[in-house]
Amino acid sequence: MPFSQPSPDDAPTIDDVRAAVARLDGVAIRTPILESPLLNDRLGRRLLVKPECLQVTGSFKFRGASNKIRAMTEAERAGGVVAYSSGNHAQGVAAAARFAGIPAVIVMPEDAPAIKRENTKAWGAEVRLYSRQSEDRAAIAQAIAEERGAVLIRPFDDPMVIAGQGTVGLETAAQLDELGIEPTAAIVPCGGGGLLAGVSLALKDRWPDLPIFAAEPEDFDDTARSLEAGERLSNASGAHSICDALLSNTPGIITFEINRRHLSRVFRVSDTQALSAMATLFETLKLVGEPGGVTGLAAALEGMAPSEDGPILVVISGGNVDPEVFSRALA
Amino acid sequence: MPFSQPSPDDAPTIDDVRAAVARLDGVAIRTPILESPLLNDRLGRRLLVKPECLQVTGSFKFRGASNKIRAMTEAERAGGVVAYSSGNHAQGVAAAARFAGIPAVIVMPEDAPAIKRENTKAWGAEVRLYSRQSEDRAAIAQAIAEERGAVLIRPFDDPMVIAGQGTVGLETAAQLDELGIEPTAAIVPCGGGGLLAGVSLALKDRWPDLPIFAAEPEDFDDTARSLEAGERLSNASGAHSICDALLSNTPGIITFEINRRHLSRVFRVSDTQALSAMATLFETLKLVGEPGGVTGLAAALEGMAPSEDGPILVVISGGNVDPEVFSRALA
Repeated sequence: MPFSQPSPDDAPTIDDVRAAVARLDGVAIRTPILESPLLNDRLGRRLLVKPECLQVTGSFKFRGASNKIRAMTEAERAGGVVAYSSGNHAQGVAAAARFAGIPAVIVMPEDAPAIKRENTKAWGAEVRLYSRQSEDRAAIAQAIAEERGAVLIRPFDDPMVIAGQGTVGLETAAQLDELGIEPTAAIVPCGGGGLLAGVSLALKDRWPDLPIFAAEPEDFDDTARSLEAGERLSNASGAHSICDALLSNTPGIITFEINRRHLSRVFRVSDTQALSAMATLFETLKLVGEPGGVTGLAAALEGMAPSEDGPILVVISGGNVDPEVFSRALA
Repeated sequence: MPFSQPSPDDAPTIDDVRAAVARLDGVAIRTPILESPLLNDRLGRRLLVKPECLQVTGSFKFRGASNKIRAMTEAERAGGVVAYSSGNHAQGVAAAARFAGIPAVIVMPEDAPAIKRENTKAWGAEVRLYSRQSEDRAAIAQAIAEERGAVLIRPFDDPMVIAGQGTVGLETAAQLDELGIEPTAAIVPCGGGGLLAGVSLALKDRWPDLPIFAAEPEDFDDTARSLEAGERLSNASGAHSICDALLSNTPGIITFEINRRHLSRVFRVSDTQALSAMATLFETLKLVGEPGGVTGLAAALEGMAPSEDGPILVVISGGNVDPEVFSRALA
């Protein structure tokens, strides 16, 4: 039996996000809201940063994976979980499985950076390498699922994963309420759109009129073009970007269903702009952001948001970056 | 009238630290407690990090300066404040004065890095440059104080400054209590000893038997040698260290009075160990630490603390580091 395909009818609701908050209590880190008064001066408005680079495994992915796993039945847990990813999702699933005490197999390309393979193993996951040229990772994952009774955790096109990422949004809304701040714009990095879908569910529930923007790499603007076309489009083959966390090819079925309802616009961010935002984050907030993680910040710094003087919220989605790339950003 | 000299009798108490917590509420950032499960695995025990690099101005110095300023009378505030520093204290005082709405003059060496002068100005302070060779910064500050009726804010040897830094400790104790964690060792970076004195007051109040350790640059081990000798000793002239935030020459009169009562031992950290700790912090917790800011972490990573399996607390005191030095740490 093949994995069941995602359907727009599976889109989670704000109640699913609320349930995820309860599930992740004491599991995920409540990342703070940070700002730099000097950066605010430079921009002429407040810039509020939600740094998910400080989350367990250095990205928000731990939230979605943990929500999915913790909602599994005892019977489902017995077979463990399987995922395919070369990046943040791999580590997120591996750590979430470890914390929940269940086995995980991560299917990774054999040319994935050694550090990512090592980290995934360090979290206790079994790593199954495959050849990008001659093997189909989905088929491998399915074979593992059948053999072991493992549950597949998709990187974004899964209602429980989206609801888990949405806890970033509910947490942020509560924190901004505590601070007495009402944002006038929110910008969220976008690859497959899972973080964006979850966060937008939460923010639109709290502030129905808040404009929400996505920030994509300029050559991976599938969500931007899909919104314009009103249907899911893919990226041109051969596109390149330094934002390795955002290189999914097509918006998800469920994530697109949510994002098309909530998004005001998509900003396109260049590699140079992403690297520059990493340097600014280093200098002002003393945080390590990865290229794909800072696209929202880059859009804010480049003045892409409508010019108003109200506070802008940006989510930094991750900080898993090689030292060489980081040094390049600082140079 | 010369500035009054600090006296051991001025040492603040835990009640002064408690008063500082109330004064800084809503002013200073409540920095989180972070940990990396993978780093814990590597060390064989929990390592809890209090990242004051995330504090306003990128170091804990903002706390002490804010406490001092907010305890000043209306009459004192009218004349503003003056401080001499080329580093974190300069930015801490400048920002604290701005937030309190009073003027600040910072006396800085004319060879201080341009970025530090610019940042201090960006916080709204007036910068008075002096020549290290031909001028006496204390005399300049005193002249400014007399001329304008400004209050001097010493970098560490002041009871209100120490009490303000102590809020790091009370905040940490409350956070560890919330998490149900009792630390078995605490390591704090040490220059003049203000952070250490304040934090130790707070931690010893909560856990009287907790061993507290200082981490000094190996060639600036004045606190280590002073503790051994039982009196305040200075560093040899011509000593070098990459830890520019910790290069004070002699323990403070008040800070030494407190630290001699609380300290179990002092660890000496080399430049190489500090750079290596910066790289580990980058890799695991996605934080930017400066060389002097990570000496406590370096001591923990190098296994200098007594070998037990209980949790170690380390304070990261700051993250104001030049891109070149940071890239060197990553190389």
